[in-house]
Amino acid sequence: MSGNSFGKILKLSTFGESHGLAIGGVLDGVPSGLELDENTIQLELDRRRPGQSEIVTQRKESDTLKLLSGVFEGVTTGAPIGFVIYNENQKTKDYDHIKNIFRPSHADYTYTKKYGHRDYRGGGRSSARETVARVVGGAIAKQCLKQLGIKISAYVDQVGEIKIPKDLDIDVSFAEKNAVRCPVPAIAEQMIDYIKKIRKSGDTVGGAVTCRVFGVPPGLGTPVFDKLHADLGKAMLSINAVKGFEYGSGFDGISMLGSEHNDVILKDESTATNYSGGIQGGISNGQEIYFRTAFKPVATIMQDQQSIDENNQVVTLKGKGRHDPCVVPRAVVIVEAMTALVLLDHYLIHQSTQMNSFVNETNS
Amino acid sequence: MSGNSFGKILKLSTFGESHGLAIGGVLDGVPSGLELDENTIQLELDRRRPGQSEIVTQRKESDTLKLLSGVFEGVTTGAPIGFVIYNENQKTKDYDHIKNIFRPSHADYTYTKKYGHRDYRGGGRSSARETVARVVGGAIAKQCLKQLGIKISAYVDQVGEIKIPKDLDIDVSFAEKNAVRCPVPAIAEQMIDYIKKIRKSGDTVGGAVTCRVFGVPPGLGTPVFDKLHADLGKAMLSINAVKGFEYGSGFDGISMLGSEHNDVILKDESTATNYSGGIQGGISNGQEIYFRTAFKPVATIMQDQQSIDENNQVVTLKGKGRHDPCVVPRAVVIVEAMTALVLLDHYLIHQSTQMNSFVNETNS
Amino acid sequence: MSGNSFGKILKLSTFGESHGLAIGGVLDGVPSGLELDENTIQLELDRRRPGQSEIVTQRKESDTLKLLSGVFEGVTTGAPIGFVIYNENQKTKDYDHIKNIFRPSHADYTYTKKYGHRDYRGGGRSSARETVARVVGGAIAKQCLKQLGIKISAYVDQVGEIKIPKDLDIDVSFAEKNAVRCPVPAIAEQMIDYIKKIRKSGDTVGGAVTCRVFGVPPGLGTPVFDKLHADLGKAMLSINAVKGFEYGSGFDGISMLGSEHNDVILKDESTATNYSGGIQGGISNGQEIYFRTAFKPVATIMQDQQSIDENNQVVTLKGKGRHDPCVVPRAVVIVEAMTALVLLDHYLIHQSTQMNSFVNETNS
Amino acid sequence: MSGNSFGKILKLSTFGESHGLAIGGVLDGVPSGLELDENTIQLELDRRRPGQSEIVTQRKESDTLKLLSGVFEGVTTGAPIGFVIYNENQKTKDYDHIKNIFRPSHADYTYTKKYGHRDYRGGGRSSARETVARVVGGAIAKQCLKQLGIKISAYVDQVGEIKIPKDLDIDVSFAEKNAVRCPVPAIAEQMIDYIKKIRKSGDTVGGAVTCRVFGVPPGLGTPVFDKLHADLGKAMLSINAVKGFEYGSGFDGISMLGSEHNDVILKDESTATNYSGGIQGGISNGQEIYFRTAFKPVATIMQDQQSIDENNQVVTLKGKGRHDPCVVPRAVVIVEAMTALVLLDHYLIHQSTQMNSFVNETNS
Repeated sequence: MSGNSFGKILKLSTFGESHGLAIGGVLDGVPSGLELDENTIQLELDRRRPGQSEIVTQRKESDTLKLLSGVFEGVTTGAPIGFVIYNENQKTKDYDHIKNIFRPSHADYTYTKKYGHRDYRGGGRSSARETVARVVGGAIAKQCLKQLGIKISAYVDQVGEIKIPKDLDIDVSFAEKNAVRCPVPAIAEQMIDYIKKIRKSGDTVGGAVTCRVFGVPPGLGTPVFDKLHADLGKAMLSINAVKGFEYGSGFDGISMLGSEHNDVILKDESTATNYSGGIQGGISNGQEIYFRTAFKPVATIMQDQQSIDENNQVVTLKGKGRHDPCVVPRAVVIVEAMTALVLLDHYLIHQSTQMNSFVNETNS
Repeated sequence: MSGNSFGKILKLSTFGESHGLAIGGVLDGVPSGLELDENTIQLELDRRRPGQSEIVTQRKESDTLKLLSGVFEGVTTGAPIGFVIYNENQKTKDYDHIKNIFRPSHADYTYTKKYGHRDYRGGGRSSARETVARVVGGAIAKQCLKQLGIKISAYVDQVGEIKIPKDLDIDVSFAEKNAVRCPVPAIAEQMIDYIKKIRKSGDTVGGAVTCRVFGVPPGLGTPVFDKLHADLGKAMLSINAVKGFEYGSGFDGISMLGSEHNDVILKDESTATNYSGGIQGGISNGQEIYFRTAFKPVATIMQDQQSIDENNQVVTLKGKGRHDPCVVPRAVVIVEAMTALVLLDHYLIHQSTQMNSFVNETNS
Repeated sequence: MSGNSFGKILKLSTFGESHGLAIGGVLDGVPSGLELDENTIQLELDRRRPGQSEIVTQRKESDTLKLLSGVFEGVTTGAPIGFVIYNENQKTKDYDHIKNIFRPSHADYTYTKKYGHRDYRGGGRSSARETVARVVGGAIAKQCLKQLGIKISAYVDQVGEIKIPKDLDIDVSFAEKNAVRCPVPAIAEQMIDYIKKIRKSGDTVGGAVTCRVFGVPPGLGTPVFDKLHADLGKAMLSINAVKGFEYGSGFDGISMLGSEHNDVILKDESTATNYSGGIQGGISNGQEIYFRTAFKPVATIMQDQQSIDENNQVVTLKGKGRHDPCVVPRAVVIVEAMTALVLLDHYLIHQSTQMNSFVNETNS
Repeated sequence: MSGNSFGKILKLSTFGESHGLAIGGVLDGVPSGLELDENTIQLELDRRRPGQSEIVTQRKESDTLKLLSGVFEGVTTGAPIGFVIYNENQKTKDYDHIKNIFRPSHADYTYTKKYGHRDYRGGGRSSARETVARVVGGAIAKQCLKQLGIKISAYVDQVGEIKIPKDLDIDVSFAEKNAVRCPVPAIAEQMIDYIKKIRKSGDTVGGAVTCRVFGVPPGLGTPVFDKLHADLGKAMLSINAVKGFEYGSGFDGISMLGSEHNDVILKDESTATNYSGGIQGGISNGQEIYFRTAFKPVATIMQDQQSIDENNQVVTLKGKGRHDPCVVPRAVVIVEAMTALVLLDHYLIHQSTQMNSFVNETNS
């Protein structure tokens, strides 16, 4: 109810503040029998880590994973996987000047109204540092999905006005080869230059992430409220700084005709086009799933801003602290993590759908 | 788990197929003590009803509400509200020709893969007729919200390429005065003409709905996974034919700078701009909440289409049946209903947030 | 949250008051592909029905089932099953005299305190008439379980002081052959005579129901909070008038030694004794599951009683209305229904436990 | 779904195995504004701790609490409270001899059947060591309840055949003054002597715990599936070794008449008797809540036992390891913890019941 858990069969419950002792969580519902590679989880954390390049925040955190339970002799047991990542590089003093101030477009004002008081250090629970726990959960889910033949690839498709042209053929594997995680090298370079310029001016800028999923079998998702794309959408919209979500034809679908938009089904059950984005009636149809997530510019800027304090006095807020000039390079990892959690959850939910399959199982 | 329930404290569970006996549901968690006006619920059903104008489907359904429980002497008791709307105008024969065929961009293929067989009559559970139950739930939620000073207004802002210009000042009350539910009369007229033309050509077209909410107090929503906009987004994405969702600055936020996008907080706690869309850190800040939902063109067209049948044989599908050429005029009502369910649910969830308020309550 | 839903994957949501229009519900999560026999569901309703013998309440209700959705051509589709049973024999006038009175050991006082007002007619939502919906849900679950080889049999083992001796060998099939549903004919006769006597004196008496389940495979249930017996216990304790629950050795286990109580495991994986009641560490072990539920005497008696009204005035309450002198003969059916719901739910949950099984499924 | 979370608004998610690195959890939904005293939580852990007296297991664990989040400047923030207790005194070698053996009446067999393999060291997740996390959650809940005027006291009322006579007047505060936690000193002494004798013989014995709750306002609990006593029952039945639960008159209610059992309501809204156990129709009535929980003898005994190994070979199992001869002295603490979790959860749920109270709040 307090919204710190995600998923149904596969459920991630998280805790931790930006400048508290630790970030952590419990991942419940991971099937038993998975050989879990801790190192691969750490690699995902490293992809998200601050300080990894010159276009992201310079906070220094090793983000070292400690798995506390649920794995025995390298294999998952079906018990919940508890984990913790201790915070190392808190500079709490950086936040003394905003202790009583509501920063514009941050959660300071809303948290105070909701809870009566707040942990002001680095945004507390509202900090994107919270996503560390999502990355751990997602990395474990990814390992299950990999065994099931499902592969998730996200990348940056836009930073400010710089974007990948619509019909360009893309090799997703290129995304990991540059700091901005855009798979088109020439555009990546432009983006990086632009982000550096933005940072220098003390400003921030928005961006967008495309996510593509290969190998999803038909049948995942449910028909009404928990449509597969509705759960993916919620997952994306729950990530800090996200303002929009579209899948398949998305907002372009508004101005299309039915005769253009319908995906003709071919003899081999594939479709001639894929405006559906791999999901029809809320359920995967076996084609590639793809969707796109819009991120606003980070609210913390290195410029003076007007605001008010807790006594409704107008104040001038000075820019201070270590922050990302643009979130999307690191957000790619979180998009993938949340996608993995949704897909594995729906995979597990789907196991209980057909009477026939159980009877066979029982007889065998 | 099967995704036919929506909400946490306020929970709507629905049932019913397009050509079954009835559509209905249970709305649980409605607070006791609300004077419930059945007539107002029926009016919402009438706003959604097929056959209400010449630009929507001509299926004839009175959609007469039967409330079965939860109300005593006109006042809610806190018990679950059961309700049923009997289907009247099923023309099941209209669907004999698609019995074994997977229609393009419908749920026929995915339902069959998921469940092994399907109710093919009018799409069964995948029909938008399912939304009747959402409208009932939403209409009850609206009555609670009204007492709490919260008002929801949705309208069509785009049909195909025809759209309301971005900065036009809009009187939302005009939306209900024309068949397409666009609040700008001149644009409404264009949209209606266009939809008629599309219908004549046997085709369909997409559209978009904007929803605006007034009077939401600060504090609704939770910080991490169940952010207020994430739950609104999921609610919208769960509606048939939806392909995208954005709130506040939305996809435009991608190319904005932080210094432009930040909403300066004024002395009276309002903000100078509202790119946040009334939600910061997942929690309402007391400003107007607004968001936009993209709908694809309806998949059923009155033109020949290629597809396959259950034996993977290529077939030509004939257009037949009664359908909407564009869903948005009726979708407006569903957008409002789902918004009401989300907001009341978060209102109720919010009641348990602060220790201090309980203690006072207990002492009084 | 309002507690009108039960179960996780298999979820029953119910509505309806004793003297409202109808009782009904939605059963969500029933796997597709089950040939559903409506007649068998009606037979279960008939087993629960008032007026079926001279030792139960004489309210006349046909309790005719109307299935509204989720079944197509006789087979479940995976869509939610909506159902309704219209009330027929409401004698609301019977309750005018208690309109403002809190009856002793009823829910009148607590409902008023919780909700501010209440539907006083026949107890409204607190009436055992609510269990009609449970019986429908349970009857559908039973049909699934039957195909999976699981069989549930409950019977009355005690009425007042009259009880079946501990070590008597019992043929459960005899239970349905007499009005009190006790499988030992001689004891059944005593019970029936006793209940008639109690009724004549205007009083009521308690009783107990034993439930035995055969054919449950090992592995159902989860290790910590949702132990199989914890969910069974909650299910039983949620039935009106229940005061206690025990499984396996139960309360007798208190005074046993570990060396007596431990169930030695034999070569064929069965156990030499079954004090565990078929459940170890919260998970079924393949042996017979058995448990026992205690019911208090019905609170409505045909004698004068002292109480207070809504203005805290002391009043004398006259006994009136049609009620059961002892609930257990009809409770047997409800115990079975709730047991079926729990077991099928855990069967479905169990499908997602082991990674290995999925991989095989996917490859095939 | 995997059953490692408990509660709805107040939700405890736990992890950890007996011989893993740590036990821990996340408590979500604690209202903001509570001054949290860490020391009081540690005192509850000390009450549960092994090695605290000569009649409990001699495993040496300091059970030192580490709170990781959710508290700022000593006050809860509304964010989830993460916590961890590192295991210190694992003697994993003690379990090498049972690696492939299914111990009688343990969870070895059922875990293996469910999950394919298991962490055999000290029972892994099935160990009562898991309850450490419950005690932390319960201790936090208790601090909230205390501010709301609610007090929970549990004590041992029976060990083997030694029990407190039914009608004895009891001073609950005496329970904490002896090692067995029985509030009647003379009987406590007998129990302690008996447990010592049982331990010497290498055997174990069952027991029972009574729990009494004072100061619960009327209105907690919901009418149908989530009756207050049903949730208490499930909470108790989820504790290791529990075989039965009864509240109010309990199993004695079976042989009572309605005219004896009904609790006459007095002018001041109290009741003349309290066979209802403070709960009517599933909702608290403001009287003392009391219930009783039956515990079986611990399955680990220091005697030879016959069993089988994973290859279905008959083996003789030697008694080994450090275990409690009787669980009830320590179980008292866990009973209280689970009771606190249930009551605070229902307190929070209850906040959203009546429309009237919100409107007032909003206006103020």
